[in-house]
Amino acid sequence: MDFKVGVVGAGAMGTALAQMIAENVDEVLLYARRKSVADAINNTRYNDEYYPNIKVRPNIRAVNDFKEFNNVEMIFLCIPSSTVRSITAELNDIISKDCILINTAKGLEVSSYKPMSTIIGEETGRPAVAFSGPNIASEMMKGLFTASTIASKNEKYLNDVKNVLESDKFKVNANNDVIGTEYCGIIKNILAISQGIFEGMNINDNARFAIFSKSYIETKDIIEKLGGMRDTVDDYCGFGDIITASTLTVSRNHTLGTLYGQGIIIDENKSGVLFEGKNTVSIFKNIIEDLNVKSTIVDFVYEVIIENKNPKTSFVKLWDNL
Amino acid sequence: MDFKVGVVGAGAMGTALAQMIAENVDEVLLYARRKSVADAINNTRYNDEYYPNIKVRPNIRAVNDFKEFNNVEMIFLCIPSSTVRSITAELNDIISKDCILINTAKGLEVSSYKPMSTIIGEETGRPAVAFSGPNIASEMMKGLFTASTIASKNEKYLNDVKNVLESDKFKVNANNDVIGTEYCGIIKNILAISQGIFEGMNINDNARFAIFSKSYIETKDIIEKLGGMRDTVDDYCGFGDIITASTLTVSRNHTLGTLYGQGIIIDENKSGVLFEGKNTVSIFKNIIEDLNVKSTIVDFVYEVIIENKNPKTSFVKLWDNL
Repeated sequence: MDFKVGVVGAGAMGTALAQMIAENVDEVLLYARRKSVADAINNTRYNDEYYPNIKVRPNIRAVNDFKEFNNVEMIFLCIPSSTVRSITAELNDIISKDCILINTAKGLEVSSYKPMSTIIGEETGRPAVAFSGPNIASEMMKGLFTASTIASKNEKYLNDVKNVLESDKFKVNANNDVIGTEYCGIIKNILAISQGIFEGMNINDNARFAIFSKSYIETKDIIEKLGGMRDTVDDYCGFGDIITASTLTVSRNHTLGTLYGQGIIIDENKSGVLFEGKNTVSIFKNIIEDLNVKSTIVDFVYEVIIENKNPKTSFVKLWDNL
Repeated sequence: MDFKVGVVGAGAMGTALAQMIAENVDEVLLYARRKSVADAINNTRYNDEYYPNIKVRPNIRAVNDFKEFNNVEMIFLCIPSSTVRSITAELNDIISKDCILINTAKGLEVSSYKPMSTIIGEETGRPAVAFSGPNIASEMMKGLFTASTIASKNEKYLNDVKNVLESDKFKVNANNDVIGTEYCGIIKNILAISQGIFEGMNINDNARFAIFSKSYIETKDIIEKLGGMRDTVDDYCGFGDIITASTLTVSRNHTLGTLYGQGIIIDENKSGVLFEGKNTVSIFKNIIEDLNVKSTIVDFVYEVIIENKNPKTSFVKLWDNL
């Protein structure tokens, strides 16, 4: 396909998405924040930090300057949500007015509680496309079967993004419910933490999966109150991603929960990894209070992770309120 | 509570339910098909075949004659679905006209494709109560946290059953959607088999959970076509039970699927265990054709389990139809 696509962020997800997209389009520009990383990818064809044993496709070119994005038709943002505003502002001065921006980060702006689509809209004056699903990046990098949800209010954007992504191996569901699609990815972090806590506490399976049911319904209640659609929660971005993050140990938020459930507190500074879900819990506690929705699962995770309450005491409260 | 409850079937679920109910009511009569089992329970206070290390409560009395049920107010049927018709017919001659019958079996009658509530209705002339949820029997026997859905068209029945079951440890959601509640328990067997097959084939997680999302939506489509409610699928009897059966190795149907996914065919006669899900697959294949619903997941499981097709070939077809 005669299409030039940009990907911002040469981390696990950015590199993997670039790899999948490169099957479908002429050229993918992969932006790395560090020039040394971009140079290494171009010279060795490997992104050693993430995929030391998988060659990046020949039509991926790593870049280190946003100016290179001046004539791309589409940009996937694969960066932490805390940097989305500043980077889209920077991109806005460079990109064409028709360039489509797709967000893959699953978080809210800490200062404003706004989702990424809103921030992209504010900074670039165009609707964003949300991308979310049960997408383990390393599997995408290997070209394994993957499915995602994309959402936008702009039908043309949806069609273009679908065409760029879709293949025999990559299935894409498109919808117009940006709010529902985005918040699924956010709330699933809280659910993954909660299920991790239960595992860490060694809570019995009947209880764990009963609460999981309740949490799933609460997710729908919250998304409806936020203006999204309940049915979106059953799609790849919801059910698929929630189950993946909550049942597999590959999820960082699930691991975080397991540790808290076992009473182990990690040194986040020294760990050098990002627990986006932890910020989300604090923000979400305020959001549901503002919305006047009751969420026993957000309350529980907030007590354990933010207030450092004894998980056993909080569990009894959670169970009583089931 | 001044209530006398009967439980038919002294297997894993019958014994565990009797144990939980015995906390709330005066007396529980636990029917065992073999007199030796009933005698052993009464004499030793253990049901050795299932729970050799957990004492049954003193107010449980094992019986071997349905005549003992002539004045119980409620009977829980914890027997294979293939025996529900004959046993309810037998009970109908003995029990009082106000006695409430609750079914826990998750299957359909092979000859008629009818769900258990219909059969109980036909044989006893009263509406049945469906009981379903993520209920691992051994956890219930230990008195661990458990939650279930009960469903009936009769509000008084629902209240009475709820009162008999509910405790600090046991949460019960009641609804009027008998069809939805029953079929959740049936379709989840098919989903558990499918997820087992994927694990046995070593299908990557992104694919496995994408298909799981699609299967979940198909479950709602089927239940709606059958006359049930989509929302019921999000309750304990749906989401909770589906996740339990599909992600834990404790599920027999999941194990069955894993073996088929690995190309291992078991000797069902010698195994001496009941794979209720296998019957369900054959029946369900016909049901969805009659309903004119498309279900890629029922088709897939049918091909692999009943037609013994190569799972890899069937998988590609399934994925293409996603």
